[in-house]
Parts: sequence; structure tokens; C-alpha cells
Amino acid sequence: MAFRAAVAGASGYAGGEVLRLLLGHPEIEIGALTGGSNAGSALGALQPHLLPLADRILQPTTPEVLAGHDVVFLALPHGQSAAVAAALGEDVLVVDCAADFRLRDPADWERFYGSPHAGTWPYGLPELPGHRDALKGTKRIAVPGCYPTAVSLALFPAYAAGLAEPEAVVVAASGTSGAGKAAKPHLLGSEVMGSMSPYGVGGVHRHTPEMVQNLGAVAGERITVSFTPTLAPMSRGILATCTAKARPGTTAAAVRAAYADALAGEPFARLLPEGQWPATSAVYGSNAALVQVALDETAGRIVAISAIDNLTKGTAGGAVQSMNLALGLPEGLGLSQIGVAP
Amino acid sequence: MAFRAAVAGASGYAGGEVLRLLLGHPEIEIGALTGGSNAGSALGALQPHLLPLADRILQPTTPEVLAGHDVVFLALPHGQSAAVAAALGEDVLVVDCAADFRLRDPADWERFYGSPHAGTWPYGLPELPGHRDALKGTKRIAVPGCYPTAVSLALFPAYAAGLAEPEAVVVAASGTSGAGKAAKPHLLGSEVMGSMSPYGVGGVHRHTPEMVQNLGAVAGERITVSFTPTLAPMSRGILATCTAKARPGTTAAAVRAAYADALAGEPFARLLPEGQWPATSAVYGSNAALVQVALDETAGRIVAISAIDNLTKGTAGGAVQSMNLALGLPEGLGLSQIGVAP
Amino acid sequence: MAFRAAVAGASGYAGGEVLRLLLGHPEIEIGALTGGSNAGSALGALQPHLLPLADRILQPTTPEVLAGHDVVFLALPHGQSAAVAAALGEDVLVVDCAADFRLRDPADWERFYGSPHAGTWPYGLPELPGHRDALKGTKRIAVPGCYPTAVSLALFPAYAAGLAEPEAVVVAASGTSGAGKAAKPHLLGSEVMGSMSPYGVGGVHRHTPEMVQNLGAVAGERITVSFTPTLAPMSRGILATCTAKARPGTTAAAVRAAYADALAGEPFARLLPEGQWPATSAVYGSNAALVQVALDETAGRIVAISAIDNLTKGTAGGAVQSMNLALGLPEGLGLSQIGVAP
Amino acid sequence: MAFRAAVAGASGYAGGEVLRLLLGHPEIEIGALTGGSNAGSALGALQPHLLPLADRILQPTTPEVLAGHDVVFLALPHGQSAAVAAALGEDVLVVDCAADFRLRDPADWERFYGSPHAGTWPYGLPELPGHRDALKGTKRIAVPGCYPTAVSLALFPAYAAGLAEPEAVVVAASGTSGAGKAAKPHLLGSEVMGSMSPYGVGGVHRHTPEMVQNLGAVAGERITVSFTPTLAPMSRGILATCTAKARPGTTAAAVRAAYADALAGEPFARLLPEGQWPATSAVYGSNAALVQVALDETAGRIVAISAIDNLTKGTAGGAVQSMNLALGLPEGLGLSQIGVAP
Repeated sequence: MAFRAAVAGASGYAGGEVLRLLLGHPEIEIGALTGGSNAGSALGALQPHLLPLADRILQPTTPEVLAGHDVVFLALPHGQSAAVAAALGEDVLVVDCAADFRLRDPADWERFYGSPHAGTWPYGLPELPGHRDALKGTKRIAVPGCYPTAVSLALFPAYAAGLAEPEAVVVAASGTSGAGKAAKPHLLGSEVMGSMSPYGVGGVHRHTPEMVQNLGAVAGERITVSFTPTLAPMSRGILATCTAKARPGTTAAAVRAAYADALAGEPFARLLPEGQWPATSAVYGSNAALVQVALDETAGRIVAISAIDNLTKGTAGGAVQSMNLALGLPEGLGLSQIGVAP
Repeated sequence: MAFRAAVAGASGYAGGEVLRLLLGHPEIEIGALTGGSNAGSALGALQPHLLPLADRILQPTTPEVLAGHDVVFLALPHGQSAAVAAALGEDVLVVDCAADFRLRDPADWERFYGSPHAGTWPYGLPELPGHRDALKGTKRIAVPGCYPTAVSLALFPAYAAGLAEPEAVVVAASGTSGAGKAAKPHLLGSEVMGSMSPYGVGGVHRHTPEMVQNLGAVAGERITVSFTPTLAPMSRGILATCTAKARPGTTAAAVRAAYADALAGEPFARLLPEGQWPATSAVYGSNAALVQVALDETAGRIVAISAIDNLTKGTAGGAVQSMNLALGLPEGLGLSQIGVAP
Repeated sequence: MAFRAAVAGASGYAGGEVLRLLLGHPEIEIGALTGGSNAGSALGALQPHLLPLADRILQPTTPEVLAGHDVVFLALPHGQSAAVAAALGEDVLVVDCAADFRLRDPADWERFYGSPHAGTWPYGLPELPGHRDALKGTKRIAVPGCYPTAVSLALFPAYAAGLAEPEAVVVAASGTSGAGKAAKPHLLGSEVMGSMSPYGVGGVHRHTPEMVQNLGAVAGERITVSFTPTLAPMSRGILATCTAKARPGTTAAAVRAAYADALAGEPFARLLPEGQWPATSAVYGSNAALVQVALDETAGRIVAISAIDNLTKGTAGGAVQSMNLALGLPEGLGLSQIGVAP
Repeated sequence: MAFRAAVAGASGYAGGEVLRLLLGHPEIEIGALTGGSNAGSALGALQPHLLPLADRILQPTTPEVLAGHDVVFLALPHGQSAAVAAALGEDVLVVDCAADFRLRDPADWERFYGSPHAGTWPYGLPELPGHRDALKGTKRIAVPGCYPTAVSLALFPAYAAGLAEPEAVVVAASGTSGAGKAAKPHLLGSEVMGSMSPYGVGGVHRHTPEMVQNLGAVAGERITVSFTPTLAPMSRGILATCTAKARPGTTAAAVRAAYADALAGEPFARLLPEGQWPATSAVYGSNAALVQVALDETAGRIVAISAIDNLTKGTAGGAVQSMNLALGLPEGLGLSQIGVAP
């Protein structure tokens, strides 16, 4: 195996998913695993699904522990990545699963995160126009947020083709793993099973400026996104229902052609055959994003829907896909288009 | 008990929920129960949660069986209600849980249901302006669809106050009981658990014209609704996320005041305190609709969200509430504002 | 309303369910509601399903707050009930939902709970032989544990009729609400959805001696119970699969007759018709226990299965049923045999 | 790729899981895919998670279609395998996922399946003593049932070491995919979500004689198994709680040593560290069986619990593992010990 990778934050959901994928990656040897309050524990007690690593002991997240690796994945709470990355050499590939380096506009960062902006790194969504090349050979990757991944893949074809007005409306349902592993009462199984609930309503969710940034860049103009996230009674998956007013004269055929064109050749973003709509179950554990689109001629809106696994394509899979590009490996190495279903 | 009620279609989900509520209604005696292919079976084998009726045998759905009741609930597939109702006397209160008599415009009916229009009955959503009075003393009630109930209650205050542009965008998540009890592969537990999926996308869902009719009447102008329903991994509940562009000059305070005003005094449609958002778990088995609203000032949209139990407020509870008005009983008799949670 | 009731621990799952039932009880007025760390909060933020109490503010759990009520429900962590009860007068009916006063043998208590034994109160399972009379007029009630309720109702008929050997084997699946509302990582929705897991294996679960006590009293001899609880991906419900070797000569007819006899006339413990097995969905929110039994002639074992709602019949419903007996009210007042399904 | 494999019954859950695993198998090329009533459909519409095969069209299940492959997987309803296998050459490896060739005693077969016995093939559970060698080079494999896989792996160490009395009591919870993809009302999502229910109670489930056969062979004496299967609200997974009376003098240390010894070196059957109990979530999509055991000294019983994915280790994974042995490939090729969690 050609490269050695460390994972900081190995006890959480993002870190666990990174490890699940790296265990199947033919060119990656798994090095140090670190945790915060879980340092000293065996991984088997925290991530019992990762049997081959059950006996590995979590180390503290220090520069010494993370030194000596070719790749370091950061699956840490927002705001901690800059300090850790600074302590690593410039020749180490740092893949940040947190939000710290995603936004270009410091004002956006400060408004939504309330702390000084750390900077901007190449953005790990290769399917977005221009991003694949920027990832090749880079030593720093900002892994996109799970919602922005789903929403950007669903809507960028419409904006790239100039078919949609610059005011998108998005409602997305996410599995609970998106909220992380910290125990909070509203995330208890008793609370979430059998229930749908919204949160971060009214334009305040932190992923909103990331969507605006992605889609605005493709559209070439300022756009707005009305974004409402909801919590669904499932562990994994995001279903993003995205609509935008169609520009005058837009036809269903033109919409379909734009999507077929934009997603042509993408291994992990797939336009479904007409009449088939994406379900999150079909991408469970898979790195694929499934997309479908329709034109509602009565309401005059393009309706694009995507399904991803928030932990795979939405986090760790996107991270590994971008890592492959950065390391000069085949983009899909160690990643699967196949879901675990039913 | 003052009135005797029959339920046609007692083996399905809507019929079962009507019976669950009638069993707790102090003025209703339960008379004949009918089924289609299940005629001859004991109700206990089909609706094991209705213990007091376990030994009742389903009869065929015929005029003779349904004769002699003060109230007849029809929980039949769309298209069958007109014939059954015609065979009942004009002095019998007929409460139709199907779509047959909901739409005013025959063209809407024919476009979405593909058969001749049967007519229009008083519409069983008392919270909508003007509807409560129309239900008092009526002998015919068209019970609203579950999605139109949730969406109309979430958006009518904005339209009544003239705050919203006439183009609504709605994404709603429903529990699987909304799809009924007929066994279809995509409704199997193995398929729906752990999965979110859309259906009826692009303006084709049959509940769309009903929303347009309700909100347009309140707005006093023609409106459009871009409606996307999704199937959520839960048995019951609808969470409707409804947005509309705010008219120029609209303030958050004006929005809140409009909602507080429109829902003031309603026992079964409640504006939550600021900062609290509705979850479907809070209305499990309850006749309450919980509503909350925000103004997204960046995107310029009003975001209104409602949660209902699709079988209670969305079907059988709305039916009983309207029946109470028709019979001159207290509107909330036999109905609860209290959910079963967690 | 004739009686005034306080609930200590109103923010938890047991306390919430007590309130849900009391809100529908015609002879109970709801008085003080207390919480621990939640004192000072509005109940609506903690129990959003209890709409009529949304504006009630939780008070601290002190003798002063709890004074002046006819009935006080204690839904507190184990070990706190004795001190609170001592501060209330002897003429106040105290209904303890914790384990403190359930066990008769101090050695059992000390072995499983590790603290000094507080005493023994009349046990709130009226269906068990001899218990109904002991509850009439009492001022102190120990509400049974949820598992012992399910298991005792499933197995006592076999032991009462002398049909079973004194070595029972029980495997029970419980919804997650049985583990309470304290946020722990293994109870997160992400962890429990899609997963079955055991806990307290090998005879160490605290409900074991309670089952042994109940069934041994009925059998008239010392029995053992091998009890394995499992956590199921649902909020509510217990399905208890209970087996015991049949005594020589036992016939299927004798087993059925014993169960029909033991449960005859019980409003809340029902033997299902032959061929119908209990599901927890049928008792969701209901106070009924559904029971079915079979004789496995090859293995020589009686297999008895019960389904209850752990929060209703297993906690708050059993508490209210016993309270009714203690207050001289009809035993089923305010309680329902009807589940919320599907 | 060295071998070409066909899958008969590719539209069902077992067939779909076989394909999911074969898509990741480095030595298998996927040949013909057949269906019954689904012949003519694209696989993408039926198994949307298998993206790389989305355009493959299902063919009818005929000898002509299945000819010309090195391996043929039969994922057909019980009773159809013998005829299909007979039409294939003796040099073709036939892997039967149905029950047809599992049982040795024709009387067992006839009693539980009601048709003439087709014969007995080498049994695909390599972990059971003696079975691994019998699978090497074979041309016919009977894939074990999902419950017998879980139960045999949990209990055989106790019987192999002579620690348990010959009367086992098993209660197992299964995900709904074990019931297959045929649409039946009791398997609807609305029915199974939030509910636990038993079925096949009293010794009548068809997997019972298979457990008796497996454990009796290990024990060297006739044993009985009281087996109760239950349906759990999850798509995948089996949790089997298995108990047997401990022989006199059995110690906890002896039990643990017996399990450690019996499972030593097994890649896909793992004894967990003391204190850690198996959860089905940890083996979601994995071929691993997790096992833990305790001695309940009060009740005098060994309690052994296993968790598997019913579709992977319980069906398709066991099939591929056995195929690898039959073809002379490394036993674990194409199989994973890693689950998809949370």
C-alpha cells in the first residue's frame, strides 16, 4: 500500500465512515487513530462494526501522534482544523471533514459560525464544474457539507444551463447521523423514531451559504436559497427536494438534456431513467448520488431531487474521492456505487 | 348515546381510525361495519387494536346494511362514494373520507382523477375562513385530503393577511399509512424503513388542486402550488414545509401577528411559541395541527411548517370534528389535542 | 373532579405518560408538576404532545410543592421515593413508579440495587391473584416494572394451574422509552434504528427478582427466571416471549383452558383468539396486555407471549388502574383498551 | 475473472444480495440474471441499489438461459431447486439458497414442507465442525437458513464442549427482509414499523429441524429446540438469544474457554470481548457473526447471543463463502467483516 493515513476524530460518525472506506481502499494503510475524550479506549467498543480495527487504541489528537503520515483526515468539531493542519507539514495531504475551509467569503463564515475565518481550501466536490482539476495534486481539501453535496448535485445542472431563476427553494430530509454522536435528548431514538421534525428554519442553517456559493458560481450570478432541513427517522441518508422557477421558454426536454449533459460520465452522480425517482435506501453505504428532475409546467418550476448517503458521498466518500484525485489515484478507488439494500 | 353511525370500509386505515375515535365519542353508538373483500371476517383479525370491536363481523357494503343509521362514514376507494350516498336518505349525514366531493371545478376533478365529477359537498376543514358555518347542520361532508389539511392550515394565514405572493412551494413528508393498506411491494417494511423517497413529483399528485382551491379562495386570486410529497419511514404523520415569497415590506412581526390572529381560538390548529417547531411525534393519534412560521429575510420567503397525524386530523379526526358541527354537538367532542409520545 | 393529583418527575417519559392519562381522567384534576433540573421550564418545551399543559411551569420537587394533593405520582429515579413519600401525609395516596417498594425480600433489593431496602408497598398489578383486593383503599402503591408486568401476565396462568416446571426462560424486546429520557450515546436514534441488541444478560437485570417474586407467589414454590432483555428499534412496546417446560401430561387444551380461566373478565389482560398472536402495535398507547399461548409438544414447552405498551400498562396505565382501585373508582376509569394503530 | 456466475431469482432480496456481493468479488463475472414474473424488466427498476447492473434485463428462469456458467445461484421459492439443478450439468457449481437440500431426514422435510424430499447437499456453514472440508471442491451447496445460521453459531460451542443439556430455548428477532419481497399486508411498513410480533410459534417454524440437525450433530445426541421467531422493525439483521441449561459443574470460565476455542481463527464468527454484546447494526451488510455468551448462575443456564445480517451471513454471504471453498478460492474473497454503521 502506497500511502499511510491517520484519522483524527475516529470515534465519531464521520471518522468511523472514513475508516470503513479506508479499510477497503487498496492503496491506503491505516495509521494513527485519535479521539478526544475517548482517547485510551479500544475502537471496538466505540465502532463495533469495524471488526478489523477492534483492538486499536485511540490516541490523543496531538501533532506528534498525527506526524509521519501521508494523509491526515480531520473529523473534528468545527473550528479545530486550522490549528491541527498548521502543525502538519505542507507536504502532508490534509482532508478536512469540518466546515472550516469551505467558504470563500469571510463575512459568510463569520455570520454563520461566529469566529474568525480560517481560509479557503480546494472544495471536494469534483462533479461541480471546475472543481475536479483544482483537486488534482492539492495538499489541502475542504470536504463539502452533506446538505450542500446533495443540493449542489441536484441543482447545478439547471443553473449551468441557464434554465432556472436565481431563487432556489430546498427542503431536505436527513438521517440522524448527520447530527453526530454527541448524546442530546432530541436525538434519542425514542424521540426520532416515528417522527419528522424541522430545524434551523428560516435561513439560519450553516450549510446555506455553502449552497449559495456553489450554485452562484455555476450560475454566474448571485442566487438565494431558501433552505429547510428536516430530521427523518432513519440513521443515514439525505433526500433533497430542490425547486427553482423555470426561466421563460424552458421545456421538459431542455431540462432533461441539461441534466444528462451535466452528469454524463460521472461515476458517482447519476441521472436516473425517466420515471424512476431516487430513494435514500438505494445509496445506503454507497458513494453514489442519484438525481432525477421534472418540470412542473403548471407551477412553472423545475423540481430536482437527489438522494445520497450523508456519511458516504456526503462526508467520508466525498473525502476519499477527493483524496484519490489529490494523490493521483483513480478517482473511484475504494469507493462503491452499490448500496446496501433493502 | 344520541346517534348511530355506520362505517363503510372498516377494514382499512381510514375506517379503522374513524372507529378508534368513535369508540371514545360519548354521543355515537357504533352500528354496521362493512368491508369489501373482507366482508365476513371478524374485525379483531383485521384491526387488532380495536379490542372492544374484536368480535364484530364485517358485512358487505350494501344500502340495506347501511340503512337505519344517523351517520354513515364512507372510507371507500375514490369513485365509489356517490353511488353509496345516493342510496342513503337525504336526512342521513354522510361523511365521505374519499376525494369524490372535494373539488369545485369539474375540470380539476377530471384532469386528476379521470372520471366524471360527482359534485361538491361542504368541505370539512372548519379552520378555513367560512367553512365552519357551512358545516353546521349539513347532511353531506367532504373530508379533506391529508396533505391539503396540513398545507392549508400552514399557509392560509399568510394568504388571508395578504402577505404572500401567489406561488407556493410545498414539500411534505408523510407516514406510510397515507398510502393505505393494500399490499404493494414499494410499501413493504423492508423498502420503507431507513428510506426517504419522493413520489407524484412535478405537479401530478391528486391533492394539488385541492390545495390550490383552498388557498386561492383565501387569497382571493389564482395561486399555484408546487407540491412534492415524500414517503417517510414512519407509520403516521405529515410534516409539511410550505414556503411562499413574501410580499414587499412584509416583516417578521407582521407574519407572526397574522398567524396568531388566524389561529386564535382554534382548538385543533395551534401556533407554537416562538422558537418551537412542530414534530409529528407530538400529534401522534391527536387531532391537533401544530403550526410554526418564520420569515427568511435573506431569501425573502415566508416558511410555514405544520405537523398533523395524517389519519387523525388528516382524515378521521377531521371527519369527526366536522360531523360534530353537522350534528350540532360541541366541535371537539370525542377528539383529543393530546398526542401519544414518545 | 373529585381528586387532585401532583406528578413529581413530570418531564420524563413515565411522568409524561401519567399526565397523558390523567388529562383524560374524569375524576382527576392535575395539580403541581415538578421536575429536577428542568424545574422552571414550561412543560410545552419538554412534552410538546401534552398541549393542554403547554404553559404549565415545572416546580422543584419539594414537600411544599407536593403538599395539598389527594394523590401524588412519583416518577423519580430509583432510590428517591422513600424520602419524598415520608414527607407526605399518611392520608395522601402515593403512587410510586420507581422500583423502591416493589420487592419483599431485602436481600433481593440489596443485591440488585445496592442500597438499603426501603420497604414493600401493595403491588399494582391487579390481575395477579390476590393483588386487586390489596389495592383497594390503600394509600401506598408500588407500580410494577414494565418487564415484570408483561412477563407476569404471560406466565402466571400456567403457574397458577400447576402446568409449568419452576424454571422459566424469558426473552423480551422493549422499545427505547423504557430506558428513559436521559441522553446516552447508545440510545441515540442513529444507534437504535435498524438494530436489535441485548443488555443486562445473564441474570443481572434488576427486573429479574420481581418476576421471580410474582411467579413464585403464584406457583407456591421457588422458581427461577432466565431473563434476557433486548432493545428494539421502536419507541414503545414490550413483546415478552416466555417459555417453561410443561409438567408431564400437560395438554394443549389444558393450557388454553388455564389461560382462559385466569384471564376471564379481566378488562386489561386479554387472551387472544386461537391463531392470533399479539403485536406491540396493537397496544400502542393502550392499557391492554394481549396474551397468547401455545404448547410446543416436540420441545415439551409452554410458550406464552404478551404484548404491552411499556409506558401505559407497563408504567403509567398500571399506576392509574391501581390508583382507581385505591380511590374506590371504577378500575378502568380514564384508561383505554384501544391502541393507536397502525 | 476466472468464473462466470448466473443468478436465478435476481429480483428478490436473496438474489439481490448475492449480486451485491458478486459485484465486489474479484474472481466472478456476472452472467445471466433471471426472474419469474419480472422477466423482461430492467434490474435497475427492481434493485435500484445495484447501479452497475441497472441496465441488465431479467431473463426467464430456463435451462437454456442458465447454461454455460461455472456457478449458478438459485434464489428461488422452496421446492423449485431440484428441477433446475437437474437440468444443469454435474460439473456446474449449484448454490441453492432455498431449503430444498438442507435436511438429512426425509421425515423432517415432509413434516415441515409437505412435499417429497429432494435430497441432501453439503451444508454451507463452514464454521460448524466438519463442514468446511465437505464444502471444498463440491459441486452442490445447500445454503443454510438465516435463523439456523445465527442459532448454530451461537450454540454449537456449548454443545461441542459438552456443557449444555440437550434442550435449547431460542428466541430470535429478524428484520423483515427475511420474509421476502412478496407484498403481504402484515409486512407493510405501516404494520411493522414500531412493532414487534411473533410468528410460527410453538415449534412449527420450518427452520426448527435444521437447528436440531446442526446442534444434534455437534452434541452427538438428540436435542430439542424450542424456537420462537419474532419480526422486528428493521430491514435486516437477526439477533438470536439462545439458552440451554448448563450441565452440572459448568463454570463461567469453562463456557468462555469453550467459545474462544470453538471460534478461534474463524474470520466470520467472532467471540466479542467480555462485556460487549452483539448488536445487529454492527453487522449490517457484513458477513460477520458476532457472538457473546454468559452463564446465568442463578438460573443455571448458558445464554449465548449472536447477531448476523440475515441477507449476508444468513444467506448470500454464506453462499459466497461456501462457493469460495467449493471453487478453491480464499474463503473470504469478496466478503467483508465490516458493517455499515451507524
